[in-house]
Amino acid sequence: MHVEAGKWGKVFNVGANTPFVSRATMTVSSLTWHRLFWSFWTVPWWQMNCQKRTLTLWSSATPSWMSREKKVAEEPKIPRMSILGIISLLSKRTLNTTPSLQEVMLTSERYGVQRLPFSHVSNRDLAFFECLMPGRVITDPDELKLFNVDWLQSVRGWCLTGHLVRCLHFGPCLGKRGGTGILICQAGCILENLSQYLESMDFTMPLDLGAKGSCHIGGNVATNAGGLRVLRYGSLRGTVLGLEVVLADGSILNCLASLQKDNTGYDLKQLFIGSEGTLGVITTVSILCPQKPKAVNLAFLGCPGFSQVLETFTTCRGMLGEILSAYEFMDDKSMKLVESHLKLSNPVTGSPFYVLIETSGSNSAHDEEKLNHFLEQAMTSGLVMDGTVVTEDKRIKALWALRERITEALTHDGYVYKYDISLPVKRLYDLVTDTRERLGRSAKNVVGYGHLGDGNLHLNITAESYSHSLLEAIEPFVYEWTAQYQVSISAEHGLGFKKKHYIHYSKPREAVHLMQKFKAMLDPKGILNPYKTLPASSL
Amino acid sequence: MHVEAGKWGKVFNVGANTPFVSRATMTVSSLTWHRLFWSFWTVPWWQMNCQKRTLTLWSSATPSWMSREKKVAEEPKIPRMSILGIISLLSKRTLNTTPSLQEVMLTSERYGVQRLPFSHVSNRDLAFFECLMPGRVITDPDELKLFNVDWLQSVRGWCLTGHLVRCLHFGPCLGKRGGTGILICQAGCILENLSQYLESMDFTMPLDLGAKGSCHIGGNVATNAGGLRVLRYGSLRGTVLGLEVVLADGSILNCLASLQKDNTGYDLKQLFIGSEGTLGVITTVSILCPQKPKAVNLAFLGCPGFSQVLETFTTCRGMLGEILSAYEFMDDKSMKLVESHLKLSNPVTGSPFYVLIETSGSNSAHDEEKLNHFLEQAMTSGLVMDGTVVTEDKRIKALWALRERITEALTHDGYVYKYDISLPVKRLYDLVTDTRERLGRSAKNVVGYGHLGDGNLHLNITAESYSHSLLEAIEPFVYEWTAQYQVSISAEHGLGFKKKHYIHYSKPREAVHLMQKFKAMLDPKGILNPYKTLPASSL
Repeated sequence: MHVEAGKWGKVFNVGANTPFVSRATMTVSSLTWHRLFWSFWTVPWWQMNCQKRTLTLWSSATPSWMSREKKVAEEPKIPRMSILGIISLLSKRTLNTTPSLQEVMLTSERYGVQRLPFSHVSNRDLAFFECLMPGRVITDPDELKLFNVDWLQSVRGWCLTGHLVRCLHFGPCLGKRGGTGILICQAGCILENLSQYLESMDFTMPLDLGAKGSCHIGGNVATNAGGLRVLRYGSLRGTVLGLEVVLADGSILNCLASLQKDNTGYDLKQLFIGSEGTLGVITTVSILCPQKPKAVNLAFLGCPGFSQVLETFTTCRGMLGEILSAYEFMDDKSMKLVESHLKLSNPVTGSPFYVLIETSGSNSAHDEEKLNHFLEQAMTSGLVMDGTVVTEDKRIKALWALRERITEALTHDGYVYKYDISLPVKRLYDLVTDTRERLGRSAKNVVGYGHLGDGNLHLNITAESYSHSLLEAIEPFVYEWTAQYQVSISAEHGLGFKKKHYIHYSKPREAVHLMQKFKAMLDPKGILNPYKTLPASSL
Repeated sequence: MHVEAGKWGKVFNVGANTPFVSRATMTVSSLTWHRLFWSFWTVPWWQMNCQKRTLTLWSSATPSWMSREKKVAEEPKIPRMSILGIISLLSKRTLNTTPSLQEVMLTSERYGVQRLPFSHVSNRDLAFFECLMPGRVITDPDELKLFNVDWLQSVRGWCLTGHLVRCLHFGPCLGKRGGTGILICQAGCILENLSQYLESMDFTMPLDLGAKGSCHIGGNVATNAGGLRVLRYGSLRGTVLGLEVVLADGSILNCLASLQKDNTGYDLKQLFIGSEGTLGVITTVSILCPQKPKAVNLAFLGCPGFSQVLETFTTCRGMLGEILSAYEFMDDKSMKLVESHLKLSNPVTGSPFYVLIETSGSNSAHDEEKLNHFLEQAMTSGLVMDGTVVTEDKRIKALWALRERITEALTHDGYVYKYDISLPVKRLYDLVTDTRERLGRSAKNVVGYGHLGDGNLHLNITAESYSHSLLEAIEPFVYEWTAQYQVSISAEHGLGFKKKHYIHYSKPREAVHLMQKFKAMLDPKGILNPYKTLPASSL
């Protein structure tokens, strides 16, 4: 059996704000392909509700799959092959904002990717999948175009072969052990659906992202997504209790405990969290979910400078304590993009910086009292120039949209160079200022926003179109600037395809070498999400 | 160079309530021993304050090391060797409660341990260490006795060779990134010292254990210790930000980030957390520390039955919400042991069950109001029979001692068979009742207590002395009983030496096999904490 290899994507899409993420991919060895699919089909509670989720076969960046197909038949058999399969649902918003897919250059050409010696999709493969899921295999090039470009329009693959609607059913299940919610769900569940399901049962997801409407929980876990609630509920490394993972040899690794505490042997699941699909395909997730807060308040405030943004954080951290659930900051430029491209209205204008402060608690009177004391203090001491506080669910969502949809607004501004850095908060905005100064008019916009509570800056640079010289002006400048501190060059987006060569800015040589050994052990043929996360191994 | 191998212990001691933990051990290959030590000595900020911490060389369970030493000289050279080194400080309390070390049977004899083919300590080795740390090598058998038996008096090694005072300096350092405390400290730091250091700077450790006065942070992390604050701050997997680890080949793996978010490559540190020293020696830890709560309340309540213990938990979880920081339960029998053996007084008597409820918050008036509402509800609905609430630090400590010192009280009651199970909370106490019924008079006491908020039961059985037939009546009964549910047979204590063969009750075959592959990759000669955690590999 031969299935064509592809070059882009990452296991399960985490959605909007992550490059290389809106295409979810998995690759399996030829020997185990049948076994893998058999595993998928035989686990009884994996209900086969195939309405929306998709698994797509990708080809490499070759203009004609028919001609390659022919060539393969003449070549000697290569004992490995790969499948890049999408478990992805393009959201309506995504489709609407993808007007000209053909304009995006092929990633293989832009970055000079040398194709690894995977074998190719054959008609026999297509027949196999057609047999598995009749009527679901797509070969129409126009129909496949939608899957070839990520929604940020920064990378493009060449999908020629087929499209299978698949398979990881929504069906979440919430267990309550002593009032503690433990959610077990399949990897293809949309984060927002899970949130709604949990909220109907008075629980909440410990994870929230701007991309919640389209991202999948499997992708969230595979990329160790951070998002808006890390400050309150911590990272997925603490809240994910168990995983089921399909390994490169097709075997199923069951680490699907739903226990808060378990110290029997090594915690294998941790290796798959954040590995970007390069070590295994996450298929089921168990996650600890806190109770839904009884009272939520959201304050949107304008600050006169970045030092006031920092001081406001220290003040609210002390005065709001355990009810502080989010502290986000946005610069004026990012708010302007949201206003101009998405026509959202900012209720507080005229400040160089804005902050979103969310409280979540169990007693609305107590929470409001704490928040009012804090706001009084912040206003009288000049930390905050202006602001608004909302408590109604609808208004809270509208205010959050100003922050959550910045990524979307940026895509309307042109080609986006995205950086996602963990920095000491005091220097967080200096990187934006210095980058802006360095690039001058060669960039259209240089904006900064992010999760200040976690020390996580999203630096974004837009230009009318992709330019190699602009990229060279940005990189390695950004990494070298940040290398002054003990930083992460990817706080939450992962390294994917574009940043894998810069891992050394954040990890020492010995650590990278050990990662490569893990990769070689778990995926000796290199078929799981190739070209991603780690630089080529010299093992 | 030859150094005698030993059989017991685990890297760094986590202290009182964990079997196999009060002896911290590490083993290194002969080729890399010098390199390992060189690493220890040359890292500039590892200050060599050698007053209290100890690194001990252990021999195997052989009656005379001189005769073995001779034998080794005649044997062909074995290309590997090991050192079991203690980085341990026996607390005064421990020393006082260890009256008759010679009564504890050698572990190798009790459990029929077949010694692995490590080589032996030579006079040349002793000379090497004497040269490194003049005057610190101990060979006096009487002096070494203290290190041969764990403080629970359940296992005994045969230490014949030497004792080196060492080396992982206390010196913690607290960084505050935007008001968020990040502690970096060496592995030998005592947990209680760290807590005091942090509290003096208005922060707190996210970890608290009954053994805090003697356990080391390195051991806490190596064993993924749970303790009393998991309910509020989550597990160490979420709060430990970085580690420095010495690998089996003597190289240093630097994963010592102090960032809250980092998605660059695989999260290697997670593999060492909870691996019980079998994959590497943790030498430095970076940990995220929350702000010290401004108000703490502690309620000690008596409940008429276990179902009321559960209902009280559900009620307080809802009414106390974000300020609930601990929910512990103890049965009457465990309280009686604390009273009789340690002469502590229980302020609330006459109930079959007791619970400790702690709140930690940022506003004392709000917290007290929430707590009062909850107590009113719990008393009027008959969930709670009697109780007391304290707010003063001294009284809080005195009440906590009733729970924290149960383990110590048990050691005074005789030989202790200890079990540490994650169970569905509704069935948590059934295991205690069923075990009590099964063992009848063959056990002295069968008691149950634990972290109900985490679904974690500590089942303890005491007898006048160790009895193999009693052990056979308990095991595998306890494991088979728990196997009805998706449980962990070791929620927080780890598997160590005694439970490694029972890992299959909690982990599937494929997972154990993968763990063995990791072990083989990272420690191919099996010199790191041998005989522990995993059953022998068939790789």
